Amino acid sequence: MSDILLAGYEPFGEFERNPARQLAIRLDGDRIGDATVIGREFPVVFDRLRPELEAAVDEHDPEIVCGLGLAAGRNALSLERVGINLRDTGGIPDNDDREPVDQPAVHDGPNAYFTTLPVRSMKEAMLEAGVPTTLSTDAGTHACNNFLYLTRHLAETSDRAFRAGFVHVPFSHEQAAARDDGEPSLALEAMRDGLLAGLEEAVGTP
Amino acid sequence: MSDILLAGYEPFGEFERNPARQLAIRLDGDRIGDATVIGREFPVVFDRLRPELEAAVDEHDPEIVCGLGLAAGRNALSLERVGINLRDTGGIPDNDDREPVDQPAVHDGPNAYFTTLPVRSMKEAMLEAGVPTTLSTDAGTHACNNFLYLTRHLAETSDRAFRAGFVHVPFSHEQAAARDDGEPSLALEAMRDGLLAGLEEAVGTP
Amino acid sequence: MSDILLAGYEPFGEFERNPARQLAIRLDGDRIGDATVIGREFPVVFDRLRPELEAAVDEHDPEIVCGLGLAAGRNALSLERVGINLRDTGGIPDNDDREPVDQPAVHDGPNAYFTTLPVRSMKEAMLEAGVPTTLSTDAGTHACNNFLYLTRHLAETSDRAFRAGFVHVPFSHEQAAARDDGEPSLALEAMRDGLLAGLEEAVGTP
Amino acid sequence: MSDILLAGYEPFGEFERNPARQLAIRLDGDRIGDATVIGREFPVVFDRLRPELEAAVDEHDPEIVCGLGLAAGRNALSLERVGINLRDTGGIPDNDDREPVDQPAVHDGPNAYFTTLPVRSMKEAMLEAGVPTTLSTDAGTHACNNFLYLTRHLAETSDRAFRAGFVHVPFSHEQAAARDDGEPSLALEAMRDGLLAGLEEAVGTP
Repeated sequence: MSDILLAGYEPFGEFERNPARQLAIRLDGDRIGDATVIGREFPVVFDRLRPELEAAVDEHDPEIVCGLGLAAGRNALSLERVGINLRDTGGIPDNDDREPVDQPAVHDGPNAYFTTLPVRSMKEAMLEAGVPTTLSTDAGTHACNNFLYLTRHLAETSDRAFRAGFVHVPFSHEQAAARDDGEPSLALEAMRDGLLAGLEEAVGTP
Repeated sequence: MSDILLAGYEPFGEFERNPARQLAIRLDGDRIGDATVIGREFPVVFDRLRPELEAAVDEHDPEIVCGLGLAAGRNALSLERVGINLRDTGGIPDNDDREPVDQPAVHDGPNAYFTTLPVRSMKEAMLEAGVPTTLSTDAGTHACNNFLYLTRHLAETSDRAFRAGFVHVPFSHEQAAARDDGEPSLALEAMRDGLLAGLEEAVGTP
Repeated sequence: MSDILLAGYEPFGEFERNPARQLAIRLDGDRIGDATVIGREFPVVFDRLRPELEAAVDEHDPEIVCGLGLAAGRNALSLERVGINLRDTGGIPDNDDREPVDQPAVHDGPNAYFTTLPVRSMKEAMLEAGVPTTLSTDAGTHACNNFLYLTRHLAETSDRAFRAGFVHVPFSHEQAAARDDGEPSLALEAMRDGLLAGLEEAVGTP
Repeated sequence: MSDILLAGYEPFGEFERNPARQLAIRLDGDRIGDATVIGREFPVVFDRLRPELEAAVDEHDPEIVCGLGLAAGRNALSLERVGINLRDTGGIPDNDDREPVDQPAVHDGPNAYFTTLPVRSMKEAMLEAGVPTTLSTDAGTHACNNFLYLTRHLAETSDRAFRAGFVHVPFSHEQAAARDDGEPSLALEAMRDGLLAGLEEAVGTP
């Protein structure tokens, strides 16, 4: 039996809601094949991510760790392919008011880690489920990139064998409607369906 | 008792599906306050629109005529405010292979008609329902603009007293997923909810 | 001998510079065929536009009146095809702090006026000159639409025989660089070249 | 005395012109501080890039190697921060009809290299020069990313001490006008000015 740790970021910056968090909580407890989803909210705080990640991995010993974060302005679920060893908050502080600029995520860490989720076949499964999905090589330089880099670093440097990835999610329809700003969005339900289809593919592709 | 004629355009050009048509058919028969939705598919053919409109109006004597058409690339339901007396297909022929360029919709017709639906309060109701919606002053110069102009012209020049409007709809999620082209979309279900909320507002605001 | 009144809007709202004004002033005095450009700054004030327009038209008796206004976010010079009888400032007051919402530009005026400039051949000439240019049917509902509607109304209701149009201009490169916000822009020099090519076409196509 | 190798990619795919190549050729021979620009066209061919790069580096012993490539749809010069060890042509073959999918640029190479140009201060200098410029963490997975990764790999694995970077350039105005497709663009002259300002900053910031 294996678990999928689905880590959704909390609200931050100008965003009072975060569909990433909503999705993690909504999928918590769902079964995907033999696996159970452990949906958890994670803080948008650079200094707290690593200890909270390590604690969650120690507690659940997941087979897969998948982060979820909001990417304002995107049209589709974005399967991130690479996390880089760079923190640059670009004017948006984390929730502990830290604003690292051009700092590494891990001192003396490698420049980048690729995701170990089968993102290409996941994308196909998610499109098949009718959910707009794309591969991305731009996880940015904020908390989302940080999550992907750190989880992969943890996997490489600990004796835990989990696979790791990150999915950027657009605004939800409700959120876009409340903002009334003309930005693209996806239905929360569709994002849920897409994640389920993608994770099912990941679970079945060891 | 009154009816709402909801006219969704059929597929055209490169688009094998048209969420406009899907929505018209899906809402057919729905009750909105005292009104019943008559959902009908309409042809993307300049020469056939007017007779089909007149026939449908004669048959159903609707209180409201609302057209639905696809606007590739938009993020939100767009409540069109104005239809202009101009046909310019811009390289996309109608389904009868006609490509009018800079022709009027109605010879000697006025330059434009404003919608007679209460689009501002409809927008608020639709946003309230959690559905991304915007007011638009650009119905284009193809079949959609033609629908708005002609229905308003019909209302002004006949003894029928119906109100008329047009809603541009984005790609559906399924359609965007199948195209795999990175374009924005809305869930068909959300578009349905938005239309219902908007039409309810319109019915209640005589 | 004939004149072209080129009316560029002043800065407004969040925009401390306005390339529309810069272009009007830069082209002031240029010869285009037999015509001379009269480049003037115009106020972004609904109540002052009509008297200032009438005064300028009385003074110069132009053959062509062409307005210029900023359209943030556009990629190309936009030749507007239609002005509508609607003012809706959408949260951006004019420079006299007026914010009309859903008011007509002219009470009992027609719903819309089409431009009387030969915008299709102007577009071709401007593209030929290497300047990104598009036809637009969305002049908005703010001061720019108001300019096009009012100049056309003036032409139709006075004994002046001038032709009238409006060109929306993107940010200039300098402006986009200073804003550092990732928005599209055109070189001011290219906008100048495009306007000259377009106006030359207009002058030669009576 | 030192040289700057400015390597602009040739036309490829659907693009008959490439402003990257035009800029490299236009700047060839320009002096920047003590350095001279060696502007060269490079082939969009995965298998030929490395030998041609090595030959050019051997011939010119440059202090800086800077690649230039077209990024359709971008609004600004993009200073790429990172090249990743991944080739994925996404349906656009190189000019030798190769379409690698999910292949490494260098077998057993590190996952990524960061640019060694001072991109942050270069960006400031380029904005100061009035040219829209942005930092980017998405060089893609095609020839452009390949250039950045390979030049950095060459610098790390040879005894040459050059610094390396890559700048994505938008369509030129002329190109966007010829395409007539509504896409953003920059004036070639502005791109030239921006590159000169950026390279001057790079030369002066050892």
